[in-house]
Amino acid sequence: MNRKSTIKAAVLGATGFAGEKLVEILCRHPAIELTGAYGIEEPKPLKDYYPRFNKVVGLSLEPIVVSEVSAKADVIFLALPHTVSFNYVPQFLAAGKIVIDLSADYRLKDVAVYEKYYGVTHKDKKNIAGAVYGLPELYRDKIKKAKLLANPGCYPTVSALSVAPLIKEQLAGDIIIDAKSGITGAGRKASVDLNYTSINGNLYAYKLFKHQHLPEIIQTISEIAGTEMEVVFTPHVVPLEQGILATVYADLKKKLTKEEIMTIYDKFYKNEPFVRVLPGLPKLKDVFNTNFCDIGFEVEGKKIIIVAVIDNLVKGAAGQAVQNMNIMLGIPETAGLL
Amino acid sequence: MNRKSTIKAAVLGATGFAGEKLVEILCRHPAIELTGAYGIEEPKPLKDYYPRFNKVVGLSLEPIVVSEVSAKADVIFLALPHTVSFNYVPQFLAAGKIVIDLSADYRLKDVAVYEKYYGVTHKDKKNIAGAVYGLPELYRDKIKKAKLLANPGCYPTVSALSVAPLIKEQLAGDIIIDAKSGITGAGRKASVDLNYTSINGNLYAYKLFKHQHLPEIIQTISEIAGTEMEVVFTPHVVPLEQGILATVYADLKKKLTKEEIMTIYDKFYKNEPFVRVLPGLPKLKDVFNTNFCDIGFEVEGKKIIIVAVIDNLVKGAAGQAVQNMNIMLGIPETAGLL
Amino acid sequence: MNRKSTIKAAVLGATGFAGEKLVEILCRHPAIELTGAYGIEEPKPLKDYYPRFNKVVGLSLEPIVVSEVSAKADVIFLALPHTVSFNYVPQFLAAGKIVIDLSADYRLKDVAVYEKYYGVTHKDKKNIAGAVYGLPELYRDKIKKAKLLANPGCYPTVSALSVAPLIKEQLAGDIIIDAKSGITGAGRKASVDLNYTSINGNLYAYKLFKHQHLPEIIQTISEIAGTEMEVVFTPHVVPLEQGILATVYADLKKKLTKEEIMTIYDKFYKNEPFVRVLPGLPKLKDVFNTNFCDIGFEVEGKKIIIVAVIDNLVKGAAGQAVQNMNIMLGIPETAGLL
Amino acid sequence: MNRKSTIKAAVLGATGFAGEKLVEILCRHPAIELTGAYGIEEPKPLKDYYPRFNKVVGLSLEPIVVSEVSAKADVIFLALPHTVSFNYVPQFLAAGKIVIDLSADYRLKDVAVYEKYYGVTHKDKKNIAGAVYGLPELYRDKIKKAKLLANPGCYPTVSALSVAPLIKEQLAGDIIIDAKSGITGAGRKASVDLNYTSINGNLYAYKLFKHQHLPEIIQTISEIAGTEMEVVFTPHVVPLEQGILATVYADLKKKLTKEEIMTIYDKFYKNEPFVRVLPGLPKLKDVFNTNFCDIGFEVEGKKIIIVAVIDNLVKGAAGQAVQNMNIMLGIPETAGLL
Repeated sequence: MNRKSTIKAAVLGATGFAGEKLVEILCRHPAIELTGAYGIEEPKPLKDYYPRFNKVVGLSLEPIVVSEVSAKADVIFLALPHTVSFNYVPQFLAAGKIVIDLSADYRLKDVAVYEKYYGVTHKDKKNIAGAVYGLPELYRDKIKKAKLLANPGCYPTVSALSVAPLIKEQLAGDIIIDAKSGITGAGRKASVDLNYTSINGNLYAYKLFKHQHLPEIIQTISEIAGTEMEVVFTPHVVPLEQGILATVYADLKKKLTKEEIMTIYDKFYKNEPFVRVLPGLPKLKDVFNTNFCDIGFEVEGKKIIIVAVIDNLVKGAAGQAVQNMNIMLGIPETAGLL
Repeated sequence: MNRKSTIKAAVLGATGFAGEKLVEILCRHPAIELTGAYGIEEPKPLKDYYPRFNKVVGLSLEPIVVSEVSAKADVIFLALPHTVSFNYVPQFLAAGKIVIDLSADYRLKDVAVYEKYYGVTHKDKKNIAGAVYGLPELYRDKIKKAKLLANPGCYPTVSALSVAPLIKEQLAGDIIIDAKSGITGAGRKASVDLNYTSINGNLYAYKLFKHQHLPEIIQTISEIAGTEMEVVFTPHVVPLEQGILATVYADLKKKLTKEEIMTIYDKFYKNEPFVRVLPGLPKLKDVFNTNFCDIGFEVEGKKIIIVAVIDNLVKGAAGQAVQNMNIMLGIPETAGLL
Repeated sequence: MNRKSTIKAAVLGATGFAGEKLVEILCRHPAIELTGAYGIEEPKPLKDYYPRFNKVVGLSLEPIVVSEVSAKADVIFLALPHTVSFNYVPQFLAAGKIVIDLSADYRLKDVAVYEKYYGVTHKDKKNIAGAVYGLPELYRDKIKKAKLLANPGCYPTVSALSVAPLIKEQLAGDIIIDAKSGITGAGRKASVDLNYTSINGNLYAYKLFKHQHLPEIIQTISEIAGTEMEVVFTPHVVPLEQGILATVYADLKKKLTKEEIMTIYDKFYKNEPFVRVLPGLPKLKDVFNTNFCDIGFEVEGKKIIIVAVIDNLVKGAAGQAVQNMNIMLGIPETAGLL
Repeated sequence: MNRKSTIKAAVLGATGFAGEKLVEILCRHPAIELTGAYGIEEPKPLKDYYPRFNKVVGLSLEPIVVSEVSAKADVIFLALPHTVSFNYVPQFLAAGKIVIDLSADYRLKDVAVYEKYYGVTHKDKKNIAGAVYGLPELYRDKIKKAKLLANPGCYPTVSALSVAPLIKEQLAGDIIIDAKSGITGAGRKASVDLNYTSINGNLYAYKLFKHQHLPEIIQTISEIAGTEMEVVFTPHVVPLEQGILATVYADLKKKLTKEEIMTIYDKFYKNEPFVRVLPGLPKLKDVFNTNFCDIGFEVEGKKIIIVAVIDNLVKGAAGQAVQNMNIMLGIPETAGLL
């Protein structure tokens, strides 16, 4: 990638799944130069962490030193664990950087809810209000002006996109989201529960009624609806690596045909480069390693079932972060993502 | 297995997944001698179809000739495709045989519904009424006296068992069943849609609002409840071979704690050898190749989410068929199944 | 399984893959009563380790106390990590028990080789000479009289069985064994290298020229041949759970047709209940969860390629251990294994 | 991808795995405009075959009409089944097109061998001699001047690259190639043998001594060596989608240390953008969806084991075809491939 690049980007947390995917996407991005990859692990070439980057990515993992990161980059991606980002964000903002945080630290407007679900005291409360929630299909105008972007979680992204057109028009309620996720959603760590023998041929639900993404889903859906919404959300682990399929059950407030609802969805998403509304039902594999969200649905009486799929590491994390960066920088929204 | 066996059994449709599993279970069964395996495919040793049966099962597949099957067996298992069994059942009943049909042909009491969902004219309407629906946990007494047993479908089995204790007491309604199944549920046939590359890493919903198991689920749940129930049922394909996980959403008619509901489930299933009510949530792999149905749930307010798992080829087909046979023959219900 | 059992067995190391499989097989065994399961992990019901044993296996894991184990069992299976068994074996032998050790501790006759490959000082050198190497197809007569049985490794089992008929007659040399194993071969532990994301879609060779099973393979093949043999052995990890496929390359000492070699194999294995010599090539899945070794081959000129498959946890560990026990106890060799 | 492109390319056989991958790569290629996708299947938008191309690739599959293809493209990729390309190649050459054939039709210089292994009469014998075998690491200079490029098979690519540095110097002989391939190597078609249930958890060798890639491997290795070489080649199917790992056994003609051999490999491949010689052993997943060939090895005495990996659809098919195109067109060799 020898193109002349003028915008410099850095990735903090380059050894996690989202960080790795960010490095991959940014290195191919036509308008970006990735100047640094940072993390708390042993400093060594990224190719020693990811042999697939050998002869592709020349960077080495470096320790996180805010001043050094700031000196080398205009855009800072934080792909750090939850409850870590808020230690760095104020300093990067103070240095005038564009900050895109992939953690949950700035997503929830109600800090009490954040502190309850993540079990820590938030150390940068004052910047929460100014953070823009980075769901481009809903908040593109705000994103354009953002300095601190809170990149949405994977479950909230697919959940919000699946129902936004209906919710916006107050056409549906009683929402139940049955979500199935590949195991990269659990992050990269040593645990017998993540072993091949624990996941292959297996399938299970977890954290019923209490997943930490639930308040984020409720916040977003409620904001779209303009009113407080209740949501039931059940995450599952399925035996695959990347991707989420959400099956969403809702009650229509009035009888609508499939065609009428299709018109509503088509209109809502008609200019969206990364949402594909389908006449049939989506399959997860069709969005593998892409930034797309595919959506299909069926209606019977006043019941609707919507099925939506994303790649949790792309549209659910790194891809959406780059899409947000593109919007913030005023470059083509699909740059580096098709 | 050289034990003296007095009851002779035959399997029709031995080349499908359920037939194969029946052969496997019956050959190990301490009270049964499997005397014949039948099908429309080329007559040759079963081990040529299933090399794993080499030195284990000595039988050859034979053409289906009713008089020959009847001459050799007391119990006839029909693991034939839907809409085929009704051609054979009357003759086996006339010959005084115990008939266990794994197809859908005798499950639905309303023949019009059967004919609508399976797209054929039923050719043995007169035996439908006398057929006993073989869900032992609900109909054990009837099964003991049955001559024609309609073995339940895989989705209906897990669906009914997941909610029976609540429904029986009219404690819940507004049931939504989000079911995820391994690909053996689709049967064994050549199709690009069943290819490894089509299933691995993939995940999708299908037949929304119109799966042929829906009327069977509604019939069973309504019968348990003693009143007509509405059910939303969504099947999915997940990338694994055997097993179904059903996530069931329901509204409680009154507030009940988890402990109260646990008491109801424990009481309902306390003597059941093949249902395990768990304090936590079940994982699919724990029932792989077993006849168990594992059930767990969580409650919040008046919402309940129940998660239940079975192996679709065992408790959802061949294992349950053998469990039913054991009951019909008056031998220990778990014989050959633990 | 309520049959009257007269022989009592115990499993030490019940929380590993081989120990788990032993518990499964022994609980179904018609002539055995499993009286104890032991390990160094937290004492609690086995079903808390393996929910699939719920309502099937009533035992709890207990701490390893030799006197207590001895008081309750006649046959002791040690499914402990390598370099641990030799601490217990002398005491069980002194107590007059039949001891079946699944570790490598008593397999290698040359203790210096053992100590080199396993990196420890052997603490029970005096019992090594008396231990019988438990490959029934080769050493059945010795096994009948054994008190201490060294159960072979998974790679050595499939390797030895694949070439024994040729080697015995000094018909082949220059042996190269290219073996591919499922990931249970690596044991159950927390490690990013064992994660689903590390194994799924992956494939690699490891420990070239230096796998700890190499000296065991050489010892066995040399003993069969009656002369020191050289062997090249390359293990690989393939993305599946259970099973090993070995592709063995050898040079024939004289020209032999496929038919002539088939005659040699058929004769060698004609009375073997668990070896299946095939006219074509074996597939791994046909031995999944069985105690069989399937073998096929092709010849061209003086080159032969033999392909053999086993389930590493069954014929490569727990199943073979039970086969050996059956022989030692004088009960039918296939008991509990078909 | 709105860049101004001046070179127009077409893909024939766009519905197979290699054709699909070609479409994907060419659509992202900075110097190419993909102007047509052709095949014998039903003409309809490519996105109807591959929903993942929805909003990415606007082309429709069109019937193969040579004049129309020629009118729209400068470079013609033929990703057709073996024994089909030779019907089209002469016409495209006559029209002055650059032709890159991914089938075997022009790879084997000895047409008698081709006709024996592929079972047909070759209908364009006269163009065989002029076709250039497209292994860039060995034939880059010839490729620069080629008009008809025979793109190598997947097994021959990884086989030749694994041993070329040694063979070139006549340092090794007695080559045995034990290759393991994902199932996309078998192509896309409906067959129970390709079903998920047939591949998942399975592993097998096939076509011992007689795979159609064997003569291609022998031809290439012999040409590198400058003398006729014998090779034993065993392909296997492993349960994954994309990728080949080849484990190559050879006898060194003289004793060489690992360091000496590393020097030979490093020198041979030092300027190669798509070959990575590793100090350790390669893992298949590190080349997934890349055009790299990763190579590692170990030496003991005069035995060497080389392990090499490629993605069969990229370096083993579509990626290498694009690499060859880049060379033929004089554009950067890595364009569109990193």
